[in-house]
Amino acid sequence: MADIAAAEPWCVRETGLSDDSLSTAGLRHAESLFALANGHIGLRGNLDENDPRGMPGTYLNSIFELRDLQYAEAGYAYPEQSETVIDAPNGKLIGLYVDDEPFDVRTGELVSHERVLDLRAGTLRREAAWVSPSGTAVRIVSTRLVSFPHPSVAAIRYEVTADPGVRLRIESDLLANEEQPEQRDDPRAATTLHDALRPVRHSDDVLEHRTRRSDLPVAAAVSHHSTGAQTVTSEPDRIRCTITGEGTLRVEKFLAYAWGPQASADRARQDRDAAVSLGFDGLAADQRAYLDEFWTAADVELDGDPEVQQAVRFGLFHVLQAGAQAGPHPIAAKGLTGNGYDGHTLWDTESFVLPVLTYTHPACVGLALRWRHGTLEAARDRARELRLAGAAYPWRTISGAECSGYWPAGTAALHVNADIADAVLRYAAASGDDDFLAGAGLEILVETARLWCRVAHLADDGEWHIAGVTGPDEYTALMDDNIFTNLMARHNLRGAAEVCERFPAGAHDLDVGADELAAWREVADNLHLPYSEARQVHEQAAGFTKLQEWDFAETKDDDYPLMMHFPYLDLYRKQVSKQADLVLAMALRSDAFTAGEKARNFAYYEARTVRDSSLSAPAQAVLAAETGHLELAHDYLAEAALLDLRAGGESSGDGLHIAACAGSWMALVMGFGGLRDHGGRLSFAPRLPQHLPRMRFRLRWRESSLRVTVTPEQATYEVSGPAVEITHHGETLTVDGAPVTRAIPRGEDKAAPPSPRPPQRRRDALEA
Amino acid sequence: MADIAAAEPWCVRETGLSDDSLSTAGLRHAESLFALANGHIGLRGNLDENDPRGMPGTYLNSIFELRDLQYAEAGYAYPEQSETVIDAPNGKLIGLYVDDEPFDVRTGELVSHERVLDLRAGTLRREAAWVSPSGTAVRIVSTRLVSFPHPSVAAIRYEVTADPGVRLRIESDLLANEEQPEQRDDPRAATTLHDALRPVRHSDDVLEHRTRRSDLPVAAAVSHHSTGAQTVTSEPDRIRCTITGEGTLRVEKFLAYAWGPQASADRARQDRDAAVSLGFDGLAADQRAYLDEFWTAADVELDGDPEVQQAVRFGLFHVLQAGAQAGPHPIAAKGLTGNGYDGHTLWDTESFVLPVLTYTHPACVGLALRWRHGTLEAARDRARELRLAGAAYPWRTISGAECSGYWPAGTAALHVNADIADAVLRYAAASGDDDFLAGAGLEILVETARLWCRVAHLADDGEWHIAGVTGPDEYTALMDDNIFTNLMARHNLRGAAEVCERFPAGAHDLDVGADELAAWREVADNLHLPYSEARQVHEQAAGFTKLQEWDFAETKDDDYPLMMHFPYLDLYRKQVSKQADLVLAMALRSDAFTAGEKARNFAYYEARTVRDSSLSAPAQAVLAAETGHLELAHDYLAEAALLDLRAGGESSGDGLHIAACAGSWMALVMGFGGLRDHGGRLSFAPRLPQHLPRMRFRLRWRESSLRVTVTPEQATYEVSGPAVEITHHGETLTVDGAPVTRAIPRGEDKAAPPSPRPPQRRRDALEA
Repeated sequence: MADIAAAEPWCVRETGLSDDSLSTAGLRHAESLFALANGHIGLRGNLDENDPRGMPGTYLNSIFELRDLQYAEAGYAYPEQSETVIDAPNGKLIGLYVDDEPFDVRTGELVSHERVLDLRAGTLRREAAWVSPSGTAVRIVSTRLVSFPHPSVAAIRYEVTADPGVRLRIESDLLANEEQPEQRDDPRAATTLHDALRPVRHSDDVLEHRTRRSDLPVAAAVSHHSTGAQTVTSEPDRIRCTITGEGTLRVEKFLAYAWGPQASADRARQDRDAAVSLGFDGLAADQRAYLDEFWTAADVELDGDPEVQQAVRFGLFHVLQAGAQAGPHPIAAKGLTGNGYDGHTLWDTESFVLPVLTYTHPACVGLALRWRHGTLEAARDRARELRLAGAAYPWRTISGAECSGYWPAGTAALHVNADIADAVLRYAAASGDDDFLAGAGLEILVETARLWCRVAHLADDGEWHIAGVTGPDEYTALMDDNIFTNLMARHNLRGAAEVCERFPAGAHDLDVGADELAAWREVADNLHLPYSEARQVHEQAAGFTKLQEWDFAETKDDDYPLMMHFPYLDLYRKQVSKQADLVLAMALRSDAFTAGEKARNFAYYEARTVRDSSLSAPAQAVLAAETGHLELAHDYLAEAALLDLRAGGESSGDGLHIAACAGSWMALVMGFGGLRDHGGRLSFAPRLPQHLPRMRFRLRWRESSLRVTVTPEQATYEVSGPAVEITHHGETLTVDGAPVTRAIPRGEDKAAPPSPRPPQRRRDALEA
Repeated sequence: MADIAAAEPWCVRETGLSDDSLSTAGLRHAESLFALANGHIGLRGNLDENDPRGMPGTYLNSIFELRDLQYAEAGYAYPEQSETVIDAPNGKLIGLYVDDEPFDVRTGELVSHERVLDLRAGTLRREAAWVSPSGTAVRIVSTRLVSFPHPSVAAIRYEVTADPGVRLRIESDLLANEEQPEQRDDPRAATTLHDALRPVRHSDDVLEHRTRRSDLPVAAAVSHHSTGAQTVTSEPDRIRCTITGEGTLRVEKFLAYAWGPQASADRARQDRDAAVSLGFDGLAADQRAYLDEFWTAADVELDGDPEVQQAVRFGLFHVLQAGAQAGPHPIAAKGLTGNGYDGHTLWDTESFVLPVLTYTHPACVGLALRWRHGTLEAARDRARELRLAGAAYPWRTISGAECSGYWPAGTAALHVNADIADAVLRYAAASGDDDFLAGAGLEILVETARLWCRVAHLADDGEWHIAGVTGPDEYTALMDDNIFTNLMARHNLRGAAEVCERFPAGAHDLDVGADELAAWREVADNLHLPYSEARQVHEQAAGFTKLQEWDFAETKDDDYPLMMHFPYLDLYRKQVSKQADLVLAMALRSDAFTAGEKARNFAYYEARTVRDSSLSAPAQAVLAAETGHLELAHDYLAEAALLDLRAGGESSGDGLHIAACAGSWMALVMGFGGLRDHGGRLSFAPRLPQHLPRMRFRLRWRESSLRVTVTPEQATYEVSGPAVEITHHGETLTVDGAPVTRAIPRGEDKAAPPSPRPPQRRRDALEA
């Protein structure tokens, strides 16, 4: 673990470099936490001088290499290739030599070392005081940014101060095909590809490469502006600028990347030159202005829990860093903070990240969904290959091609299609972006509706069923009538039908006739939702409640995550959920359940959910809050929010859990705020536990901004912009110029239902 | 396809070498058909001179190499290595040069060419008349055998005759690490491993090797006895004997292999020398004597269908070639006729091959089951790894280690354990081999019963269930309460309990107490058997009849096998069966169903079974006969019997379907003969279709031999040895010295129920 200081409201501070933080795991953890990104470029938070390091990481969104997928036993329509994010040329490297002795935090004496991620400035600042092995003292200050408003640009300011006469030499590199550490043995980790970039051309200021197999062009430009004497050398994989001076040196290093349709050395040079003319201070000012605007619309305040307050802001910051868009791009599960999950985008994006961005930074969402639309042809091809209809979006991908190598928990998780449709409908309702909805949105909705219509079948019982698919819970696969899938498919089908009726011309262009609309509605209205009369709860999937109970008494702490210690054969056969599934359905499709059902279902699945997925706690927080377990909701919120920052360790080392970052916002705003958005309307049912005096969150809704301030007793709604109609605990309110305050109905804070793995704070409390 | 002549009762004759038969597919087909084996050594039926060839093949039972299994996404307890049968040193090679021109059937003029597999002699004889490109005529006669009574020995007699003065040269090789053709792209085919044998030592008469990774020793000895001048050269991978002469040359080549515990050059030499001293004629005489004894006990006669008559004998011959045992060894799915399925043993052995051998050549069965017992420790380890109890036998293996790389159709098919237990119980009942039963048999039964007891769970409905496993039908996986599995598990549990009570000391040694016996019986007596009230049929697994129907109208002929054209996602979700599953359960656990249930179930699953597995037709034949569809039973019998001989093509090229060979016996004896063996008793319900005048089969039962002769009107039972109590259509008979004849109750031959893929003969009839 990195050495992260106690919570501060607007920054994350590393106060030193202990042995623990200098271990590979500690280095990897800090590199992820301190990663800077803008949705396009991602720089892991490596030390300037590169060593020691856990894993380097310079990512350009959608720059990937292909690798062959191997199967012990092949099968029809198994993907033959996967895509893996690779390192772009690394421009972070700034080596320092003090009287020819290399600066290395592990040698000499490190008098002090601090790094600060500033969530308002959007920078990573480092200050170090070091005495070299031969006794020369230096002070180093570096500041790094990846520019939100200038999405192809990153910049570093590096200053080193020593006594006059001390010879200083900086070797600042732009380095391609850097050697990568070997990956640990975990299926969730990325494949390491060596030497993935083929050099095309190099000069003193630009490296041009193409990825070897995927053949994607990348150009990287660099320039240095310093107070010293500069010499530049270049070779195919490296540009090195050597800067020498005495006493004090200051360097500003500007990087610009060009890839994708804009890939050219000229484009990279142009963007770099624009950055140079702004200067580092100009870039930093633009960065702060961008973030000021973001936080004004998006900030969440939580009084009474500074640790979670910090973590929620940290999470929102990383959601923005992952999701910011200047053109349609995927948003990966790890954002651009690491190469975990091979840099793939999964359903997390539409079900966790986009809902948050929809209400905080909606422009990104339209573009992210346009990226999905841009991959629609691939999804149509995949549906044909799978002998289905419409579109079958991939379970995991960078380019749009299916990259999942284990179909029962990949291709069979068809819900990803409805998750995308859900994101389309939510964004369209919240933003009023009818241009998007009538075009790309409609097409996504129609093609996914067609998939569901083909997948569902009418059985003897007169109901429609979706058999043999996998829901969010990956410890239960290939089941019939997964309730999450069925509810999301229903929403997809109904939404598609409604949008087709709103935009008949578009529907006509897609050959949607009245019969097809009627068929969608017939399926939607009669999709089976399994329910156990014996246990008086809904079933996660048909028969789930009849499966064998998991033997939690015999399961040891180090048996988790279960997937690393038990075969799927065992997991699939039993009532154990990796993560919220039905519970997530109750959060996202809240109107499909009565309050009583929610309470019973929540308690039932609490006892069977182990949270081996970081996607779980947010949904459990939301339902815990709704069902009156406010303390428990707080604990789940904390678990989600603190995952990467405080608890992460191993699994954060190859990148942050961006969905959990988003999930902490959901836990707060959907949980304590009670936000629901069914039928294109906002409703709230805020409720805070007594020990939290106040929270405040902000939402974007169409042309308006809504600010909601909640105390245990009351909620105040304020709108800037046109009036917004909402409901507060069922009461319809129109919020216009003046704040509207309403009391919050009192309710007892219920005791947490039994759980095999209470959230960490709860366990700590139980143990204390 | 090979050029196989019209049916002859006791041999399979290839009458020439057409272009078709010289294609790779044709060559491979003939190499499989004409493979000779004795359960220990297998020699594919390549031409003596090796070229042209489809695939060479010299196999020693249990000599395999390891290869890494690769997974696109790894998982807990996935096997990391697989085992693949490899070629032992090839001693079949005999090249001929006529005045220095190489004999090659593709050059010069092939005046005549005939090969005959003689099922009584146990030899492959070849006669060729050839005129070399320069006009020299020769006649070649070769005879090859792999000795049943001398299991380490193979021998070849090769004679070539030409006009006096024609210079003849034979180059006869023993060749290791022969180059292998690349495998076709089919998951069922074997992986080709190059250079798998590491040379250890060589001399003029023995090659010694070890497999590289699995480190198994192999010694091969050769010697030549000829009428010509012999020169021998040797190198690490080859011994070559060059024999020259004029006009006429005759060579006898003796091969002996030593591997496994007996592996040594001395042992190989000893066995070879013993063969040399018998001479080829002596070996041939011993071979015929062995087979005479076999056929006396095992022959099946079927009047009225010479094609099937031949095929059934061919099948029995190959079952013997695969199953003969001089020591405990596995019996592979392809026997020793090719490298398909990597040479693995699957459940086919216990469920198809061993039942036939139990009644025709029981000594093999005891040894084959002792081999399973010898792998019990590996099965216990596997059960622990899978977090189960008792023993979990592998889905596919050579050594006993799990080699399945796709767990939903491998590891999850737990029924293999009950299949082994079933084979134990059947063999013990039929043979009376109490030594086996009280020792190895008991231990297998106990450990497999323990597995079932752990896997089953008691649900709210008061019944026991086995959830999330895969039955025989691989188009339906990970279902609850697969009826085949549950019935076989019940048999396993009850059988284990009974045998424990018979042998209390053995049970005590295995820590089986009264509580455990009671638990087994409780589970066995209350295992759920799913039944659809709506459709009035049993369900192959819970919910099967509610799945979507397969759209057969839209399925084209070249969409079969479905697994090559549809994803598992689609197959698993629908009511389509690759192969008999419930129908096989009705054959093997016949007493669990009423006649009415059998009729309804059979018709229901007929309409949904596509027979993409060669294991399907035999079970369908058995149930077709039992439910009164005699014509259909005959057609399924023919399909099973003719699969390799007449229809095989591609899938026979890498080895024969030994289970289908056995299945044709089952189709006849369990189908038309109505043999059932529940509760350790033999019952018959023979019924022949009117157009088949007579069939006769033989069974071994304890110390007796039983001969059953069936006509459409009556059946005659004859016993040699102690009296045997049987039932004939429900009537109990004691058959002693005198033949007992009983009338066969008349029944109409019912029309075949609808099937998406009627058996080939039926389709031919429908088209005609």
